[in-house]
Amino acid sequence: MSARREASNWGRWGPDDERGTLNLLTADAVLGGVAAIRSGKVYGLGLPINATAAPIVEGRGEPRRLTLTCDSDDERYEAYGAAVGVGANQDILVLASHHGTHLDALSHVFADRTMYNGFPSSTFKAFSGAGRLGVEKLGVFAGRAVLLDVAAAAGVECLPPGHVITRAELESCATAEGVDVREGDILLIRTGWLEQWQRSAGGVSGPGGAGQPGIGLDACGFIRDHDIAAVGADNSAVEAIPFDKDTFLSVHIELLVTLGVPLLEHLSLAELARDRRYEVLLCVAPLPVTGAGGSPVNPIAIA
Amino acid sequence: MSARREASNWGRWGPDDERGTLNLLTADAVLGGVAAIRSGKVYGLGLPINATAAPIVEGRGEPRRLTLTCDSDDERYEAYGAAVGVGANQDILVLASHHGTHLDALSHVFADRTMYNGFPSSTFKAFSGAGRLGVEKLGVFAGRAVLLDVAAAAGVECLPPGHVITRAELESCATAEGVDVREGDILLIRTGWLEQWQRSAGGVSGPGGAGQPGIGLDACGFIRDHDIAAVGADNSAVEAIPFDKDTFLSVHIELLVTLGVPLLEHLSLAELARDRRYEVLLCVAPLPVTGAGGSPVNPIAIA
Amino acid sequence: MSARREASNWGRWGPDDERGTLNLLTADAVLGGVAAIRSGKVYGLGLPINATAAPIVEGRGEPRRLTLTCDSDDERYEAYGAAVGVGANQDILVLASHHGTHLDALSHVFADRTMYNGFPSSTFKAFSGAGRLGVEKLGVFAGRAVLLDVAAAAGVECLPPGHVITRAELESCATAEGVDVREGDILLIRTGWLEQWQRSAGGVSGPGGAGQPGIGLDACGFIRDHDIAAVGADNSAVEAIPFDKDTFLSVHIELLVTLGVPLLEHLSLAELARDRRYEVLLCVAPLPVTGAGGSPVNPIAIA
Amino acid sequence: MSARREASNWGRWGPDDERGTLNLLTADAVLGGVAAIRSGKVYGLGLPINATAAPIVEGRGEPRRLTLTCDSDDERYEAYGAAVGVGANQDILVLASHHGTHLDALSHVFADRTMYNGFPSSTFKAFSGAGRLGVEKLGVFAGRAVLLDVAAAAGVECLPPGHVITRAELESCATAEGVDVREGDILLIRTGWLEQWQRSAGGVSGPGGAGQPGIGLDACGFIRDHDIAAVGADNSAVEAIPFDKDTFLSVHIELLVTLGVPLLEHLSLAELARDRRYEVLLCVAPLPVTGAGGSPVNPIAIA
Repeated sequence: MSARREASNWGRWGPDDERGTLNLLTADAVLGGVAAIRSGKVYGLGLPINATAAPIVEGRGEPRRLTLTCDSDDERYEAYGAAVGVGANQDILVLASHHGTHLDALSHVFADRTMYNGFPSSTFKAFSGAGRLGVEKLGVFAGRAVLLDVAAAAGVECLPPGHVITRAELESCATAEGVDVREGDILLIRTGWLEQWQRSAGGVSGPGGAGQPGIGLDACGFIRDHDIAAVGADNSAVEAIPFDKDTFLSVHIELLVTLGVPLLEHLSLAELARDRRYEVLLCVAPLPVTGAGGSPVNPIAIA
Repeated sequence: MSARREASNWGRWGPDDERGTLNLLTADAVLGGVAAIRSGKVYGLGLPINATAAPIVEGRGEPRRLTLTCDSDDERYEAYGAAVGVGANQDILVLASHHGTHLDALSHVFADRTMYNGFPSSTFKAFSGAGRLGVEKLGVFAGRAVLLDVAAAAGVECLPPGHVITRAELESCATAEGVDVREGDILLIRTGWLEQWQRSAGGVSGPGGAGQPGIGLDACGFIRDHDIAAVGADNSAVEAIPFDKDTFLSVHIELLVTLGVPLLEHLSLAELARDRRYEVLLCVAPLPVTGAGGSPVNPIAIA
Repeated sequence: MSARREASNWGRWGPDDERGTLNLLTADAVLGGVAAIRSGKVYGLGLPINATAAPIVEGRGEPRRLTLTCDSDDERYEAYGAAVGVGANQDILVLASHHGTHLDALSHVFADRTMYNGFPSSTFKAFSGAGRLGVEKLGVFAGRAVLLDVAAAAGVECLPPGHVITRAELESCATAEGVDVREGDILLIRTGWLEQWQRSAGGVSGPGGAGQPGIGLDACGFIRDHDIAAVGADNSAVEAIPFDKDTFLSVHIELLVTLGVPLLEHLSLAELARDRRYEVLLCVAPLPVTGAGGSPVNPIAIA
Repeated sequence: MSARREASNWGRWGPDDERGTLNLLTADAVLGGVAAIRSGKVYGLGLPINATAAPIVEGRGEPRRLTLTCDSDDERYEAYGAAVGVGANQDILVLASHHGTHLDALSHVFADRTMYNGFPSSTFKAFSGAGRLGVEKLGVFAGRAVLLDVAAAAGVECLPPGHVITRAELESCATAEGVDVREGDILLIRTGWLEQWQRSAGGVSGPGGAGQPGIGLDACGFIRDHDIAAVGADNSAVEAIPFDKDTFLSVHIELLVTLGVPLLEHLSLAELARDRRYEVLLCVAPLPVTGAGGSPVNPIAIA
């Protein structure tokens, strides 16, 4: 554990901190993101939520929208005094908090049965969920985001399956794009994988799925050294699959557990990339579900 | 129907329009919201999602977070090759799309079996939901929002139950706050009701619940004349309960059906009000659930 | 409609009847089933409920068992006064009422927008479900069941896909087995399909699935003439797929709508067949879910 | 632990046994139950499943039936080739496995982090549920059941809240009814509590709920000495609340953990009691949900 603590952010914001590097998103950092706005164009980075629009990761199941009320419920509404033909359509949603485009809370992953800042994994209970580091502790956040279109920089539609993106690739991509990466930035990494998945038959993804390009441990050094506030990517796990160093969830452990960096996965970055918007204000609004290990999100980029 | 069409926005953005007044949120309108930012302070306007933090409206039930995986699933992760003590916490969410702080899509309410822009209520199917006007058609949106703290302007903690807020009250509130309301603005109305509910025992709300302050049809004229893009409030239905003119969902019908104005309900406006932030950039990111009549949201205000 | 009424059971047990041919299961009929018991051996005819043990019919989704409490919830139980190490394992179930081995209630299918006994399909509401003919109206039932092992009588492991079992095949099967079919009996038909599905890779079944053997309209005459109380089979729809006469759900319509005969699907009949138990007491206990169109069941045969 | 083992059934049916006292339900025991049948009258002992018909035990939530398809889905069925007006009503169920009338599997409760037959509580995993003693291991079962109407024997509509039923009360009740209790019987105990709950406003029950009559540890001796196969009652926990000896779940621990006796709770025994049917064939058909700690059931009594 000592090795982890030395190079980690544990204790950096106090022993009770549950927000990790989101602490870097000060009002000044937010204003830095606001300053990046040029055109007022708004981008939604979330995939549609239905049975086919996003990879179904093993065990998480298909998201479901079920009808709660519709115009067959006229009698119910008439009992409330509604005029004939007046009523409401309502739904019930059943979905994994990590389905589709989502935010990994700092309680999402543990190593040595320990989560970020030293909280034991046992603080996540079956009934009540995360007693520590739940997604509700992160709250909404906003800041300057930098899109590193690594696929475009490499001149490919999609990086090869299993390709491990390095620190050098991130740096040369930033240089090619002419953007600087600053402390407290949110990093968005485009591998091209999601668009390739969309062009293909779709289907199942995740730990047991086929290979995906993504970052490795070397790139985590870039994230640590730049004091990145959050990292997102257009793949299933931000990190490469198979995992770097053949270590299960190696990058998740480094970012979520050691550094306290929340992750955004399955981001839809195609339109931002097409418009070459490399600096944006990014607004992320997880559902504040008490005790959840993550939340579906639909991040907003304003360019 | 003809009366509705005359004073309505039906057809204004074409016969296939499914976004209503969100069409007013042009890039210029977004930049107008960006220009309102002063301090970089970020506010989350969503209530926590758990069994007690928001009113449980009849029929919608309590939201549930259920554990999908936690550290008891060590064998499952070891089968993936994880080291001992490495794993993930994951959840399944079951909740009404209109639970807690949420966005009403334009398919949420119908009158004369007809929704905004003339789409029949029958286009909402039990199995597939909204074929027209689903929440996914709205997408994410951002713009200048004006907070009208009607309770504060009236010098009360909470407007009385059933109080119908008028156009004149909105106008005098804006004057008192020194803010102008512009075309394409998002209107946020604070009645004080949610905070009062939080101070009380909490419990059930909604059509069959006790009285709530909110706007009436007269105030809808203010919204129409100012070409407001969206309206939110800190109560259960934006509108007063009992409903204005003793007409079931009268304001919902006027705003959602006739004018195509999406509604934000159960907004947590206390902190914005305390800070007297009357002009903000508001970012709203509904989950793009295909065919849903609404979505839980956690709107972000940047002041 | 008149043709249907003439050969139908509509009105036979009064205009308000919601139990159909289960009315035939009089106390005497039950005693007739009891008289069939020889050995006291008990058979469960329900398939396991998990993601893979039964065909996943399109739209119904996988059944889910989610943990509500387990031994991670020690603090919760200690708050109740439990000693250390004392607690409870509990689950939440999410599943289609027609998943796996299940009972079709008389509200399950409609034709000409009409259900059994003339109740309109519109009496099934999105919010409250079946106002008429819900599964709770059937209640539990028991009676003499006759297993017709048509596959064995044909000397095959499984009847061919799409094979339409006729009245003559049922009659010759009964003769071969040496059993008589009596008024008020429950008919169990083995096609061999389920076991073949289990031997194969499994997967999706149902209306859009591959062909299945099952009964056709001709065999429905056998059921009507013998005044059968309920019909079950080891396939997905009792009836053949593609549907007999190229008419969508033709046998469902004849049995559920015209005759009011509840159906049992995906029955596990292998062990009964292997033991050549052709006469048994069958006990069927649908969950009395108010307004449901069906229920998962685990029928008990006592031989 | 040694004390528990001495007086327990651990190991009695081998170290891998997962059925406990259901092993006593031999074919002969089943025939003993069959011999109790006189009239052929069938009783369903399950409460209706809806939001109000059964106590909502803390944490388990209300059961939900949600519509999957109904006659609004005409286009979906027409796409399958259905004639106009032909379609199906289907539901999705969301409910606790221990809601309403239900069976506690042997994995339901643990003490000293240990379940029946010595299996550790850690064999119940969040993701996969009970690796040992899941409800699917019990299977369906049938046997002779004896109804001990303790409330009637005491001459009251309902035993007092918190009343701890003793062995002597069970014995004198059996004597008064003129029934003998035999090895391998299923014991059904009527306290009158459920009917009183139904007459009252209903509401929440369970560990944090008000007092209930039920059996105590002394009565467990009766169950052990008679080698009872399963025990059911018309209250929330079979046992008295507050728990006997002020020990959390004391009777659950004795019956489920020490003796391996499955429990049936919230049984609707009013009609059996009214008819004075003290000996019946009882058939119990839990849903064989892989890994579940219990199942809703609708037990069938044939008298």
